Amino acid sequence: MELPSKLLENAVNEMSQLPGIGKRTALRLVLHLLKQPVEQTEELTTALENMRKDIQFCKKCHTISDAEVCIICSNPARDKSIICVVEDVRDVMAIENTNMFKGVYHVLGGKISPIEGVGPSQLKITSLVEKVKEGTISEIIFALSSTMEGDTTNFYIYKQIKEYQIKTSTIARGIAVGDELEYADEVTLGRSLLNRIPFETSIKQ
Amino acid sequence: MELPSKLLENAVNEMSQLPGIGKRTALRLVLHLLKQPVEQTEELTTALENMRKDIQFCKKCHTISDAEVCIICSNPARDKSIICVVEDVRDVMAIENTNMFKGVYHVLGGKISPIEGVGPSQLKITSLVEKVKEGTISEIIFALSSTMEGDTTNFYIYKQIKEYQIKTSTIARGIAVGDELEYADEVTLGRSLLNRIPFETSIKQ
Ligand SMILES: [Zn+2]
Ligand SMILES: [Zn+2]
Repeated sequence: MELPSKLLENAVNEMSQLPGIGKRTALRLVLHLLKQPVEQTEELTTALENMRKDIQFCKKCHTISDAEVCIICSNPARDKSIICVVEDVRDVMAIENTNMFKGVYHVLGGKISPIEGVGPSQLKITSLVEKVKEGTISEIIFALSSTMEGDTTNFYIYKQIKEYQIKTSTIARGIAVGDELEYADEVTLGRSLLNRIPFETSIKQ
Repeated sequence: MELPSKLLENAVNEMSQLPGIGKRTALRLVLHLLKQPVEQTEELTTALENMRKDIQFCKKCHTISDAEVCIICSNPARDKSIICVVEDVRDVMAIENTNMFKGVYHVLGGKISPIEGVGPSQLKITSLVEKVKEGTISEIIFALSSTMEGDTTNFYIYKQIKEYQIKTSTIARGIAVGDELEYADEVTLGRSLLNRIPFETSIKQ
Protein backbone atom coordinates (compact mmCIF):
# COMPACT_ATOMS: atom_id res chain seq x y z
CA MET A 1 0.00 0.00 0.00
CA GLU A 2 1.75 3.13 -1.21
CA LEU A 3 0.38 6.31 0.29
CA PRO A 4 0.50 9.63 -1.61
CA SER A 5 1.66 11.62 1.42
CA LYS A 6 4.31 11.20 4.12
CA LEU A 7 2.09 12.96 6.67
CA LEU A 8 -0.69 10.50 5.96
CA GLU A 9 1.73 7.58 6.02
CA ASN A 10 3.12 8.56 9.43
CA ALA A 11 -0.37 8.87 10.89
CA VAL A 12 -1.38 5.48 9.45
CA ASN A 13 1.79 3.83 10.73
CA GLU A 14 1.34 5.17 14.26
CA MET A 15 -2.35 4.29 14.32
CA SER A 16 -1.63 0.74 13.20
CA GLN A 17 0.68 0.24 16.22
CA LEU A 18 -2.51 -0.14 18.26
CA PRO A 19 -3.56 -3.76 18.88
CA GLY A 20 -6.07 -5.12 16.36
CA ILE A 21 -5.74 -2.08 14.07
CA GLY A 22 -4.29 -3.09 10.69
CA LYS A 23 -3.04 -0.67 8.03
CA ARG A 24 -6.37 -0.67 6.22
CA THR A 25 -8.38 0.16 9.34
CA ALA A 26 -5.79 2.76 10.35
CA LEU A 27 -6.18 4.45 6.95
CA ARG A 28 -9.96 4.48 7.32
CA LEU A 29 -9.75 6.06 10.78
CA VAL A 30 -7.21 8.65 9.70
CA LEU A 31 -9.19 9.62 6.57
CA HIS A 32 -12.22 10.03 8.82
CA LEU A 33 -10.29 12.52 10.98
CA LEU A 34 -9.32 14.46 7.84
CA LYS A 35 -12.99 14.85 6.96
CA GLN A 36 -13.94 16.07 10.43
CA PRO A 37 -13.25 19.58 11.80
CA VAL A 38 -9.68 20.01 13.03
CA GLU A 39 -11.04 20.30 16.60
CA GLN A 40 -11.93 16.60 16.67
CA THR A 41 -8.30 15.59 16.10
CA GLU A 42 -7.17 18.14 18.70
CA GLU A 43 -9.62 16.84 21.30
CA LEU A 44 -8.53 13.25 20.65
CA THR A 45 -4.81 13.97 20.89
CA THR A 46 -5.24 16.20 23.96
CA ALA A 47 -7.30 13.55 25.76
CA LEU A 48 -4.71 10.86 24.98
CA GLU A 49 -1.77 13.04 26.02
CA ASN A 50 -3.38 14.20 29.26
CA MET A 51 -4.31 10.65 30.15
CA ARG A 52 -0.85 9.27 29.43
CA LYS A 53 0.88 12.10 31.33
CA ASP A 54 -1.35 12.60 34.34
CA ILE A 55 -3.01 9.29 35.09
CA GLN A 56 -2.00 7.63 38.34
CA PHE A 57 -2.10 4.13 39.69
CA CYS A 58 -3.56 3.78 43.19
CA LYS A 59 -0.64 3.27 45.56
CA LYS A 60 -2.66 0.70 47.49
CA CYS A 61 -4.32 -1.47 44.82
CA HIS A 62 -2.54 -0.27 41.62
CA THR A 63 -5.77 0.35 39.73
CA ILE A 64 -6.05 3.36 37.40
CA SER A 65 -6.95 6.43 39.37
CA ASP A 66 -7.06 10.24 39.20
CA ALA A 67 -5.72 10.45 42.76
CA GLU A 68 -2.95 8.82 44.82
CA VAL A 69 -5.49 6.47 46.39
CA CYS A 70 -8.43 5.28 44.29
CA ILE A 71 -12.11 5.81 45.12
CA ILE A 72 -12.49 2.18 46.19
CA CYS A 73 -9.48 2.06 48.54
CA SER A 74 -10.42 5.44 50.03
CA ASN A 75 -14.00 4.37 50.72
CA PRO A 76 -14.36 3.69 54.49
CA ALA A 77 -17.30 1.34 53.82
CA ARG A 78 -15.11 -1.17 51.95
CA ASP A 79 -13.68 -4.09 53.87
CA LYS A 80 -9.88 -3.73 53.56
CA SER A 81 -9.29 -7.24 54.92
CA ILE A 82 -10.71 -8.99 51.84
CA ILE A 83 -8.63 -8.58 48.69
CA CYS A 84 -9.76 -9.63 45.24
CA VAL A 85 -6.75 -10.21 42.95
CA VAL A 86 -7.42 -9.25 39.30
CA GLU A 87 -5.50 -8.71 36.10
CA ASP A 88 -6.49 -5.19 35.14
CA VAL A 89 -8.90 -2.31 35.59
CA ARG A 90 -11.49 -3.91 33.30
CA ASP A 91 -11.88 -6.75 35.80
CA VAL A 92 -12.35 -4.23 38.60
CA MET A 93 -15.09 -2.56 36.55
CA ALA A 94 -16.77 -5.89 35.76
CA ILE A 95 -16.86 -6.96 39.42
CA GLU A 96 -17.96 -3.50 40.61
CA ASN A 97 -20.88 -3.72 38.16
CA THR A 98 -22.20 -6.80 40.01
CA ASN A 99 -22.49 -4.82 43.28
CA MET A 100 -21.68 -8.11 45.04
CA PHE A 101 -18.20 -7.36 46.37
CA LYS A 102 -17.52 -5.06 49.30
CA GLY A 103 -13.81 -5.76 49.79
CA VAL A 104 -10.94 -4.11 47.91
CA TYR A 105 -8.85 -5.09 44.89
CA HIS A 106 -5.26 -5.78 44.00
CA VAL A 107 -4.52 -5.17 40.32
CA LEU A 108 -1.57 -7.25 39.10
CA GLY A 109 -1.29 -5.52 35.74
CA GLY A 110 -1.35 -8.76 33.74
CA LYS A 111 -0.56 -12.41 34.29
CA ILE A 112 2.58 -14.50 34.08
CA SER A 113 3.05 -15.42 30.43
CA PRO A 114 6.35 -16.88 29.21
CA ILE A 115 5.05 -16.65 25.61
CA GLU A 116 4.43 -12.90 25.86
CA GLY A 117 7.58 -12.45 27.92
CA VAL A 118 5.77 -11.41 31.12
CA GLY A 119 7.53 -12.64 34.25
CA PRO A 120 6.47 -12.26 37.91
CA SER A 121 8.72 -9.22 38.38
CA GLN A 122 6.67 -7.23 35.85
CA LEU A 123 3.52 -7.77 37.89
CA LYS A 124 2.51 -6.21 41.20
CA ILE A 125 3.06 -9.40 43.19
CA THR A 126 5.59 -8.27 45.80
CA SER A 127 3.27 -5.56 47.15
CA LEU A 128 0.48 -8.15 47.52
CA VAL A 129 2.73 -10.47 49.50
CA GLU A 130 3.75 -7.49 51.66
CA LYS A 131 0.10 -6.75 52.45
CA VAL A 132 -0.41 -10.36 53.55
CA LYS A 133 2.74 -10.25 55.71
CA GLU A 134 1.38 -7.22 57.58
CA GLY A 135 -1.26 -9.52 59.05
CA THR A 136 -4.40 -7.46 58.46
CA ILE A 137 -5.72 -9.52 55.53
CA SER A 138 -8.30 -12.24 56.23
CA GLU A 139 -8.98 -13.52 52.68
CA ILE A 140 -7.46 -13.42 49.22
CA ILE A 141 -9.86 -14.10 46.32
CA PHE A 142 -8.19 -15.03 43.03
CA ALA A 143 -10.24 -13.69 40.10
CA LEU A 144 -7.85 -14.13 37.18
CA SER A 145 -9.03 -15.62 33.91
CA SER A 146 -9.08 -19.42 33.99
CA THR A 147 -6.33 -19.96 31.42
CA MET A 148 -2.98 -21.60 31.86
CA GLU A 149 -1.44 -18.16 32.46
CA GLY A 150 -4.10 -17.32 35.04
CA ASP A 151 -3.61 -20.63 36.85
CA THR A 152 0.19 -20.23 36.79
CA THR A 153 -0.11 -16.74 38.27
CA ASN A 154 -2.54 -17.86 40.97
CA PHE A 155 -0.26 -20.71 41.96
CA TYR A 156 2.87 -18.51 41.96
CA ILE A 157 1.20 -16.10 44.37
CA TYR A 158 -0.32 -18.91 46.44
CA LYS A 159 3.10 -20.45 47.08
CA GLN A 160 4.36 -17.16 48.48
CA ILE A 161 1.45 -16.50 50.82
CA LYS A 162 0.46 -19.95 52.03
CA GLU A 163 2.85 -19.85 55.02
CA TYR A 164 0.77 -16.96 56.46
CA GLN A 165 -2.26 -19.27 56.57
CA ILE A 166 -4.93 -16.84 55.47
CA LYS A 167 -8.07 -17.96 53.66
CA THR A 168 -7.69 -18.14 49.86
CA SER A 169 -10.42 -18.74 47.31
CA THR A 170 -11.07 -18.49 43.58
CA ILE A 171 -14.27 -17.33 41.95
CA ALA A 172 -16.64 -20.15 40.92
CA ARG A 173 -16.58 -21.34 37.31
CA GLY A 174 -19.75 -22.77 35.89
CA ILE A 175 -22.58 -22.48 33.44
CA ALA A 176 -23.57 -18.83 33.07
CA VAL A 177 -26.94 -17.88 34.56
CA GLY A 178 -29.57 -18.35 31.83
CA ASP A 179 -27.34 -20.48 29.59
CA GLU A 180 -28.48 -23.83 28.16
CA LEU A 181 -26.43 -26.81 29.34
CA GLU A 182 -26.14 -28.24 25.83
CA TYR A 183 -24.21 -25.21 24.59
CA ALA A 184 -21.73 -25.12 27.48
CA ASP A 185 -18.19 -26.31 26.82
CA GLU A 186 -17.30 -29.54 28.56
CA VAL A 187 -14.62 -28.12 30.87
CA THR A 188 -17.01 -25.52 32.24
CA LEU A 189 -19.78 -28.08 32.61
CA GLY A 190 -17.38 -30.47 34.34
CA ARG A 191 -16.33 -27.78 36.83
CA SER A 192 -19.99 -26.92 37.44
CA LEU A 193 -20.62 -30.50 38.50
CA LEU A 194 -17.48 -30.78 40.56
CA ASN A 195 -18.17 -27.56 42.43
CA ARG A 196 -21.90 -28.14 42.90
CA ILE A 197 -23.49 -26.32 45.82
CA PRO A 198 -26.26 -27.43 48.21
CA PHE A 199 -29.65 -26.84 46.64
CA GLU A 200 -30.81 -25.00 49.74
CA THR A 201 -27.97 -22.53 49.25
CA SER A 202 -28.81 -22.06 45.59
CA ILE A 203 -32.46 -21.18 46.14
CA LYS A 204 -31.45 -18.38 48.50
CA GLN A 205 -29.24 -16.72 45.83
CA MET B 1 -19.58 1.26 31.97
CA GLU B 2 -18.32 3.39 34.84
CA LEU B 3 -14.66 4.25 34.60
CA PRO B 4 -12.53 4.87 37.70
CA SER B 5 -10.81 7.95 36.25
CA LYS B 6 -11.94 11.08 34.39
CA LEU B 7 -8.70 11.14 32.37
CA LEU B 8 -9.32 7.58 31.22
CA GLU B 9 -12.97 8.34 30.52
CA ASN B 10 -12.11 11.35 28.33
CA ALA B 11 -9.59 9.33 26.33
CA VAL B 12 -12.09 6.48 25.85
CA ASN B 13 -14.84 8.90 24.82
CA GLU B 14 -12.66 10.63 22.23
CA MET B 15 -11.32 7.35 20.87
CA SER B 16 -14.84 5.97 20.49
CA GLN B 17 -15.75 8.92 18.23
CA LEU B 18 -13.81 7.10 15.50
CA PRO B 19 -15.96 5.03 13.14
CA GLY B 20 -16.29 1.37 14.10
CA ILE B 21 -14.62 1.88 17.50
CA GLY B 22 -17.05 1.16 20.33
CA LYS B 23 -16.45 2.00 24.00
CA ARG B 24 -15.10 -1.44 24.75
CA THR B 25 -12.56 -1.35 21.91
CA ALA B 26 -11.64 2.23 22.80
CA LEU B 27 -10.91 1.13 26.38
CA ARG B 28 -8.74 -1.72 25.14
CA LEU B 29 -6.72 0.62 22.88
CA VAL B 30 -6.32 3.25 25.58
CA LEU B 31 -5.23 0.70 28.23
CA HIS B 32 -2.69 -0.56 25.70
CA LEU B 33 -1.23 2.95 25.39
CA LEU B 34 -0.98 3.16 29.19
CA LYS B 35 1.12 -0.01 29.23
CA GLN B 36 3.48 1.24 26.52
CA PRO B 37 6.23 3.84 27.03
CA VAL B 38 4.94 7.41 27.02
CA GLU B 39 6.78 7.99 23.72
CA GLN B 40 4.32 5.78 21.84
CA THR B 41 1.40 8.03 22.78
CA GLU B 42 3.46 11.12 21.93
CA GLU B 43 4.38 9.75 18.52
CA LEU B 44 0.77 8.85 17.77
CA THR B 45 -0.63 12.24 18.79
CA THR B 46 2.14 14.15 17.01
CA ALA B 47 1.60 12.21 13.79
CA LEU B 48 -2.16 12.82 13.93
CA GLU B 49 -1.77 16.52 14.70
CA ASN B 50 0.83 17.12 12.01
CA MET B 51 -1.27 15.31 9.46
CA ARG B 52 -4.44 17.19 10.33
CA LYS B 53 -2.66 20.58 10.36
CA ASP B 54 -0.29 20.30 7.42
CA ILE B 55 -1.83 17.94 4.91
CA GLN B 56 -2.90 19.47 1.63
CA PHE B 57 -5.33 18.54 -1.07
CA CYS B 58 -3.94 18.73 -4.60
CA LYS B 59 -5.38 21.89 -6.15
CA LYS B 60 -5.86 20.05 -9.43
CA CYS B 61 -7.35 16.68 -8.46
CA HIS B 62 -8.13 17.21 -4.72
CA THR B 63 -6.33 14.06 -3.64
CA ILE B 64 -4.34 14.05 -0.41
CA SER B 65 -0.90 15.48 -1.00
CA ASP B 66 2.15 16.88 0.77
CA ALA B 67 2.47 19.60 -1.87
CA GLU B 68 0.14 22.02 -3.68
CA VAL B 69 0.04 19.72 -6.69
CA CYS B 70 0.18 15.95 -6.10
CA ILE B 71 2.81 13.58 -7.49
CA ILE B 72 0.39 12.25 -10.10
CA CYS B 73 -0.78 15.61 -11.44
CA SER B 74 2.79 16.93 -11.50
CA ASN B 75 4.09 13.91 -13.43
CA PRO B 76 4.66 14.99 -17.08
CA ALA B 77 4.20 11.38 -18.26
CA ARG B 78 0.55 11.28 -17.17
CA ASP B 79 -2.13 12.06 -19.77
CA LYS B 80 -3.98 15.10 -18.39
CA SER B 81 -6.79 14.74 -20.95
CA ILE B 82 -8.15 11.52 -19.37
CA ILE B 83 -9.74 11.97 -15.98
CA CYS B 84 -10.79 9.12 -13.73
CA VAL B 85 -13.45 10.29 -11.23
CA VAL B 86 -13.22 8.56 -7.83
CA GLU B 87 -14.62 8.93 -4.34
CA ASP B 88 -11.51 9.16 -2.23
CA VAL B 89 -7.79 8.62 -1.99
CA ARG B 90 -8.19 4.89 -1.33
CA ASP B 91 -9.64 4.48 -4.83
CA VAL B 92 -6.67 6.38 -6.28
CA MET B 93 -4.35 4.00 -4.45
CA ALA B 94 -6.28 0.93 -5.64
CA ILE B 95 -6.18 2.01 -9.29
CA GLU B 96 -2.53 3.10 -9.08
CA ASN B 97 -1.71 -0.39 -7.79
CA THR B 98 -2.99 -1.91 -11.05
CA ASN B 99 -0.43 0.09 -13.10
CA MET B 100 -3.08 0.16 -15.85
CA PHE B 101 -4.07 3.82 -15.82
CA LYS B 102 -1.90 6.59 -17.19
CA GLY B 103 -4.36 9.48 -16.98
CA VAL B 104 -5.08 11.63 -13.93
CA TYR B 105 -7.75 11.58 -11.22
CA HIS B 106 -10.47 13.77 -9.86
CA VAL B 107 -11.29 13.01 -6.22
CA LEU B 108 -14.86 13.97 -5.33
CA GLY B 109 -14.44 13.45 -1.59
CA GLY B 110 -17.48 11.20 -1.30
CA LYS B 111 -20.72 10.55 -3.16
CA ILE B 112 -24.17 12.11 -3.09
CA SER B 113 -26.06 10.50 -0.20
CA PRO B 114 -29.32 12.01 1.05
CA ILE B 115 -29.31 9.51 3.95
CA GLU B 116 -25.91 10.67 5.17
CA GLY B 117 -26.75 14.29 4.37
CA VAL B 118 -24.16 14.64 1.60
CA GLY B 119 -25.33 16.92 -1.20
CA PRO B 120 -23.56 17.81 -4.47
CA SER B 121 -22.26 21.09 -3.01
CA GLN B 122 -20.15 19.17 -0.44
CA LEU B 123 -18.37 17.30 -3.23
CA LYS B 124 -15.74 18.57 -5.69
CA ILE B 125 -18.12 18.57 -8.66
CA THR B 126 -17.96 22.22 -9.80
CA SER B 127 -14.22 22.06 -10.36
CA LEU B 128 -14.66 18.93 -12.48
CA VAL B 129 -17.27 20.64 -14.68
CA GLU B 130 -14.91 23.63 -14.99
CA LYS B 131 -12.13 21.36 -16.27
CA VAL B 132 -14.47 19.93 -18.90
CA LYS B 133 -15.57 23.44 -19.94
CA GLU B 134 -11.96 24.43 -20.56
CA GLY B 135 -11.99 22.02 -23.51
CA THR B 136 -8.76 20.10 -22.87
CA ILE B 137 -10.41 16.91 -21.54
CA SER B 138 -11.02 14.03 -23.96
CA GLU B 139 -12.52 11.41 -21.64
CA ILE B 140 -14.11 11.14 -18.21
CA ILE B 141 -14.06 7.67 -16.60
CA PHE B 142 -16.51 7.19 -13.76
CA ALA B 143 -15.04 4.83 -11.15
CA LEU B 144 -17.41 5.28 -8.21
CA SER B 145 -18.74 2.28 -6.33
CA SER B 146 -21.76 0.73 -8.04
CA THR B 147 -24.30 1.57 -5.36
CA MET B 148 -27.35 3.76 -5.62
CA GLU B 149 -25.30 6.68 -4.27
CA GLY B 150 -22.54 6.03 -6.80
CA ASP B 151 -25.01 5.84 -9.68
CA THR B 152 -26.77 9.02 -8.53
CA THR B 153 -23.47 10.87 -8.37
CA ASN B 154 -22.37 9.63 -11.81
CA PHE B 155 -25.66 10.72 -13.32
CA TYR B 156 -25.62 14.12 -11.59
CA ILE B 157 -22.17 14.84 -13.05
CA TYR B 158 -23.07 13.36 -16.44
CA LYS B 159 -26.05 15.74 -16.81
CA GLN B 160 -23.76 18.74 -16.29
CA ILE B 161 -21.05 17.70 -18.74
CA LYS B 162 -22.99 16.00 -21.54
CA GLU B 163 -23.47 19.27 -23.48
CA TYR B 164 -19.69 19.41 -24.00
CA GLN B 165 -19.85 16.10 -25.84
CA ILE B 166 -16.72 14.49 -24.49
CA LYS B 167 -16.34 10.73 -24.19
CA THR B 168 -17.62 9.30 -20.89
CA SER B 169 -17.23 5.75 -19.62
CA THR B 170 -17.56 3.70 -16.47
CA ILE B 171 -15.28 0.92 -15.34
CA ALA B 172 -16.49 -2.58 -16.28
CA ARG B 173 -18.32 -4.64 -13.66
CA GLY B 174 -18.08 -8.38 -13.86
CA ILE B 175 -16.87 -11.58 -12.34
CA ALA B 176 -13.52 -11.05 -10.67
CA VAL B 177 -10.57 -12.69 -12.41
CA GLY B 178 -10.17 -16.17 -10.93
CA ASP B 179 -13.63 -16.26 -9.35
CA GLU B 180 -16.03 -19.17 -9.85
CA LEU B 181 -19.26 -18.24 -11.65
CA GLU B 182 -21.41 -20.14 -9.17
CA TYR B 183 -20.34 -17.91 -6.29
CA ALA B 184 -20.91 -14.61 -8.11
CA ASP B 185 -23.98 -12.57 -7.17
CA GLU B 186 -26.63 -12.44 -9.88
CA VAL B 187 -26.42 -8.70 -10.55
CA THR B 188 -22.69 -8.91 -11.23
CA LEU B 189 -23.12 -12.03 -13.35
CA GLY B 190 -25.93 -10.34 -15.29
CA ARG B 191 -23.76 -7.31 -16.01
CA SER B 192 -20.91 -9.59 -17.06
CA LEU B 193 -23.17 -11.12 -19.72
CA LEU B 194 -24.62 -7.83 -20.84
CA ASN B 195 -21.21 -6.21 -21.22
CA ARG B 196 -19.52 -9.23 -22.80
CA ILE B 197 -16.49 -8.48 -24.96
CA PRO B 198 -15.26 -10.09 -28.20
CA PHE B 199 -13.32 -13.26 -27.44
CA GLU B 200 -10.44 -12.05 -29.63
CA THR B 201 -10.15 -8.98 -27.42
CA SER B 202 -10.18 -11.05 -24.24
CA ILE B 203 -7.35 -13.35 -25.26
CA LYS B 204 -5.10 -10.35 -25.82
CA GLN B 205 -5.66 -9.05 -22.26
ZN1 LIG C 1 -6.98 1.49 45.19
ZN1 LIG D 1 -3.41 15.89 -8.14
